[in-house]
Amino acid sequence: MIDLEQLRDCYVSTPSKIVLLVVDGLGGLAHPDTGRSELETANLPNLDAMAQESACGLTTPVLPGVAPGSGPGHLALFGYDPLKYLIGRGALEALGVEVELRPGDVAARGNFCTVDDSGSLVDRRAGRIPTELSAPLCRRLDGIELDGVRVDVFPVQDYRFVLRLRGEGLSERVSETDPQITGVPALEVKPLEPAAKKTAQLVNQFVDQARRLLSEEERGNMVLLRGWAQLPSLPPMGEVYRLQPAAIAAYPMYRGLATVAGMKIIPTGMSFSDEVETLRANYDAHDFFFIHYKPADAAGEDGDFDAKVRALEALDPLIPQIRALNPDVFMVAGDHATPAIMAAHSWHPVPFMLNSSLTRGEGVASFDEKACGLGSIGRIPATNIMLLALSHSGKLTKFGP
Amino acid sequence: MIDLEQLRDCYVSTPSKIVLLVVDGLGGLAHPDTGRSELETANLPNLDAMAQESACGLTTPVLPGVAPGSGPGHLALFGYDPLKYLIGRGALEALGVEVELRPGDVAARGNFCTVDDSGSLVDRRAGRIPTELSAPLCRRLDGIELDGVRVDVFPVQDYRFVLRLRGEGLSERVSETDPQITGVPALEVKPLEPAAKKTAQLVNQFVDQARRLLSEEERGNMVLLRGWAQLPSLPPMGEVYRLQPAAIAAYPMYRGLATVAGMKIIPTGMSFSDEVETLRANYDAHDFFFIHYKPADAAGEDGDFDAKVRALEALDPLIPQIRALNPDVFMVAGDHATPAIMAAHSWHPVPFMLNSSLTRGEGVASFDEKACGLGSIGRIPATNIMLLALSHSGKLTKFGP
Repeated sequence: MIDLEQLRDCYVSTPSKIVLLVVDGLGGLAHPDTGRSELETANLPNLDAMAQESACGLTTPVLPGVAPGSGPGHLALFGYDPLKYLIGRGALEALGVEVELRPGDVAARGNFCTVDDSGSLVDRRAGRIPTELSAPLCRRLDGIELDGVRVDVFPVQDYRFVLRLRGEGLSERVSETDPQITGVPALEVKPLEPAAKKTAQLVNQFVDQARRLLSEEERGNMVLLRGWAQLPSLPPMGEVYRLQPAAIAAYPMYRGLATVAGMKIIPTGMSFSDEVETLRANYDAHDFFFIHYKPADAAGEDGDFDAKVRALEALDPLIPQIRALNPDVFMVAGDHATPAIMAAHSWHPVPFMLNSSLTRGEGVASFDEKACGLGSIGRIPATNIMLLALSHSGKLTKFGP
Repeated sequence: MIDLEQLRDCYVSTPSKIVLLVVDGLGGLAHPDTGRSELETANLPNLDAMAQESACGLTTPVLPGVAPGSGPGHLALFGYDPLKYLIGRGALEALGVEVELRPGDVAARGNFCTVDDSGSLVDRRAGRIPTELSAPLCRRLDGIELDGVRVDVFPVQDYRFVLRLRGEGLSERVSETDPQITGVPALEVKPLEPAAKKTAQLVNQFVDQARRLLSEEERGNMVLLRGWAQLPSLPPMGEVYRLQPAAIAAYPMYRGLATVAGMKIIPTGMSFSDEVETLRANYDAHDFFFIHYKPADAAGEDGDFDAKVRALEALDPLIPQIRALNPDVFMVAGDHATPAIMAAHSWHPVPFMLNSSLTRGEGVASFDEKACGLGSIGRIPATNIMLLALSHSGKLTKFGP
């Protein structure tokens, strides 16, 4: 796996522009009735036309056989080895609800649960209480004070929340409190290394106070905490590649991932047309844009083949609007496949195309799994697409004399 | 190269079943008269039908251009980086004749040779004396006693034997005694690192005693020792992947390799029907089976194109019997190619297919080098097939949040 810093001396800043469109969950698998995948089923005249003028291939997000979460899926596309730069669950959850994380902060996924008089868990999700009921409980917990540490509790959805601790000398290396079964009490937090002793003590104090503050509740009279995580320290993409990178993403998690990679976040609306409009309005101010399209993944995760086809067809008419900006490099990629027949992220190689003035004769007939598999780029690790983008836009000079 | 331990947190134990059929020396090259490889020449209706319902590809055993021995070829298929986990020649020879090797044991390939009165080598292979003559000599050497070390000598074939030393503080880092030419005496054993001093002294004592015990022989009045090796310490496959792995192999070397990887060995007969019957009889007791088919490699090594075609055709009718067990994942792979026109192991990528309920729409028309090269899996390192097996059988969960 390439480390993006390995070629540091080859990156050069130029006025050329790169657009990376990430179609979340892009790849798919054949429908059992038709033998055709979502991309092969959808009517995608603009993506197909672009493929004919592009270098096409398939990207492997992590390794053959390994289905990535959104974190490793995106970090790989930005050029970071996903096996090296790990984003913990608590940090990703925080990013997903726009909780600001600074280096050193520790975040956990929290959820309300219900315990009986003896403290044993009766319901690990507190009857899935709705956000209207959990948000006030979060505000109550937000008032907890711990010595030398700032405590913030943010509602997520239903019974879930994010706990953020901010202070000196905190560590993510503490154990979780969720015993994963009912009929037993929540677990005490233990340090997983000596340096985490203070954090473990503070969290146990938080839990004690939470227990008291919630004791009168019928549902949600206790909390469980897991997925302790700090932000990983990534070399900022802009600095390494000598780019001015910007991210345009309607969903907070992807803005969070872009922040971790050191991109500037440009505020935008919820639809993809809003995102494209944001791209147009800010086109002069940056030389690299990550623009994110979510609906394909959502439909795939729902196991709704037709909805995924429609999501792809809804994207297609907006492709010419991006091409009209005439970026030096325009890439369409996916963070991973989300085959509707699996209703989950999968490990399959993901269709990829790169359009530039240098790729005119390299295209394949259509933008789908099989056609891209025969494209000129072949199968490459997802971590390599940034190198292709930089070279095709004149931003990556010759390696070695 | 993936280290199989890097994804430790993603492996889960489930009741699903994986069968890995290794067709030794599977891949080949085109016959000069027909332009068709052994696989393309053979009539393989069952393998071809399976390919049509499978994800197909080509596996690279070690690196492009590198022809592997049986050791690295198999270890790679089990997921071990063959450049990291090396099995020395002496250890492999020992495994090949069912000599038990424990951690710490040192084994060498030995052979009888003939020296003249001055001790100079006349024949490095003692006229290739047959096993009937060499076996009694082995028994004589087996009686040698060394201080604090158990000495065992096992006949192999003709002039060859295995020497095994068992005791505390032994090292494989000692030099060989075979000077590779005649007219000079056998070399003294030297330690290749300070910690090997004791082993070198012991081996020199062994050689001195052997010289005396054999001095009256006309052919085989001396020994040569090379390929000093200890067993490498591999993370056990079952423990890492959370599997109950079993091996079914008629030939001892492959059982030995499976043992090194931590598989349980199920006794079986000499024919592949015996092996399939063994698989059926033990199907409930394990969730991963390695089953080995030898004849394709043997014919390839003999340079007998037609015999290799016949070996593949003899395998084909047994494929439905394995499929009838309905494994969740059934893989057909090769440890390396053995093109008959080369009469040797080769470096070529090896046809591979993985059959599961998720691979129905991914197949190619036939199971051969060219068709598999166009398959959905593409070209992958052989070390990655276990990840594909685990993911397709639900035993590899999403990596990262």
